[in-house]
Amino acid sequence: MASIPAAADAPAATIHETLDRAAAQTDAFLSDFLSTQSQCPAPLMEAIRYSLLGPGKRIRPALAILCARAVGGNQEDAMPAAGAVELIHCFSLVHDDLPAMDDDDLRRGRPTNHKVFGDALAILAGDAMNTLAFELLAVGVPDARLALALSRELAVATGAQGMIGGQVLDTCHPRQADRAAATLADLQRVHRMKTGALINAACRMGALSGRATPAAMNHIDAYGKAIGLMFQIVDDLLDVTATAEQLGKRTGKDAEIGKLTYPSLLGLDATRRHLTEQLTLSINAAAALGPDAAKLADLAHMLAARSK
Amino acid sequence: MASIPAAADAPAATIHETLDRAAAQTDAFLSDFLSTQSQCPAPLMEAIRYSLLGPGKRIRPALAILCARAVGGNQEDAMPAAGAVELIHCFSLVHDDLPAMDDDDLRRGRPTNHKVFGDALAILAGDAMNTLAFELLAVGVPDARLALALSRELAVATGAQGMIGGQVLDTCHPRQADRAAATLADLQRVHRMKTGALINAACRMGALSGRATPAAMNHIDAYGKAIGLMFQIVDDLLDVTATAEQLGKRTGKDAEIGKLTYPSLLGLDATRRHLTEQLTLSINAAAALGPDAAKLADLAHMLAARSK
Repeated sequence: MASIPAAADAPAATIHETLDRAAAQTDAFLSDFLSTQSQCPAPLMEAIRYSLLGPGKRIRPALAILCARAVGGNQEDAMPAAGAVELIHCFSLVHDDLPAMDDDDLRRGRPTNHKVFGDALAILAGDAMNTLAFELLAVGVPDARLALALSRELAVATGAQGMIGGQVLDTCHPRQADRAAATLADLQRVHRMKTGALINAACRMGALSGRATPAAMNHIDAYGKAIGLMFQIVDDLLDVTATAEQLGKRTGKDAEIGKLTYPSLLGLDATRRHLTEQLTLSINAAAALGPDAAKLADLAHMLAARSK
Repeated sequence: MASIPAAADAPAATIHETLDRAAAQTDAFLSDFLSTQSQCPAPLMEAIRYSLLGPGKRIRPALAILCARAVGGNQEDAMPAAGAVELIHCFSLVHDDLPAMDDDDLRRGRPTNHKVFGDALAILAGDAMNTLAFELLAVGVPDARLALALSRELAVATGAQGMIGGQVLDTCHPRQADRAAATLADLQRVHRMKTGALINAACRMGALSGRATPAAMNHIDAYGKAIGLMFQIVDDLLDVTATAEQLGKRTGKDAEIGKLTYPSLLGLDATRRHLTEQLTLSINAAAALGPDAAKLADLAHMLAARSK
């Protein structure tokens, strides 16, 4: 559906060029998909587009696209998976920012969805993006078996045992009381569910779309799990070390509300060692996939070093 | 999965006995499905079970089950469709009741989800039920083509062009200002999306599960559309004529907030004539389906006469 040619995805492109191109292709694909929703009320469409197509790194769609290519598949086949994971990610951001949840005013350098459209429409826009992800897979993937496998991966990663379950552990538990007894295993359980499950699903769904062999899928899964933990470790570090201006959202908030994080549990040095361990795991997994997966190693390095 | 024998679904059973049995089978099926979610955090599971398995008429699952039987299929095959539409319905109730939406304290005679579990957990429980509906279809329907067709029906009926879109039209529009210019077509558009789409999806998904022929599916679709409008007309009438005690929720609220309803637009007598028209359409559609669909006509009569 996207009209942007694939030529600039040549191996010589830098990881930043590759990510920019994947983001542009994802946005074009999602914009095309939204334009098929002709009966969607205008205010709802506006609220969805504001959060789905606004500024953002589009890391999850890029992972889907790069994992499809890493297993020898092509990019076009990964677009429904890429779009669906971004819809789920954006739904979760809109709901997480609500006053009843994290109560954030700023996201990606702009007012949050509910600050612009009101709480009711923000709740409904999030709900719609959740459902639209499954609609996109059901209407956008011609092969029924593949569509069903993708829908299963996404639902499990998103639902009560995945992202939403992790959000409950992270948001609704009495944090301060649990802090003294919390272990690294507790922390990793929260993060595997809250952040890791959807990131790994992005990788796995891309690889499924690229018709990965079972052996390749094992490497993709190892890569996705390591990248998922890495992503959260870096997020926790940035909340301590970066400024709101750099991140485009409030910082220092984790410590303020007594949230269990890697730095609060382990200290900064041990947190950085954990980051390096996960980076090594992800690079080894990419190496095992062969030359088509070189970009996955580049992306892992970039994510480990990101400053926003 | 449900362990309740099908014997009492004999043609001689009254529609009330049939509905009670369908409700018990749906609850058993959904309870079994929830018990597979072993990694779901306990507070989230409690909030989901409170709204999904609490008191309720389970009309949508019953429609799925009866439509499967009306086209010559069997009940067991319709259970994933029945469970999935109930998950979506309950997700919508939990979110609709939130303070940022309709701000209701009472639902089915009990405190609403957010009154018991707090707003954050209610938002997340609703989100989880939305996703779980698609997970249930993806893991519970062995035939990939059927699973995909069911997932597509449910997503379209739920999403931006269906229930959630209708909720936006109903909740977020400046109602009073639009009242003077509102037409029956406007009202029916809201209701077709907000209530009708999911009710028709329940019917169509049941019929798909029962392997309906294209001709039978046309009659099911006519039945589902008529029943959907009828359901909303009765809801509007009851909000005017019933007591909170009868309904187990607040009444008189539509008029209080100046909501566009059948009675407010047409008056009570014309609203009752509209109800009779839709009842006739639904009974004709059931008759066209033949003797296996007799229960669908009984259900239509019962829904037209319901007092809560």
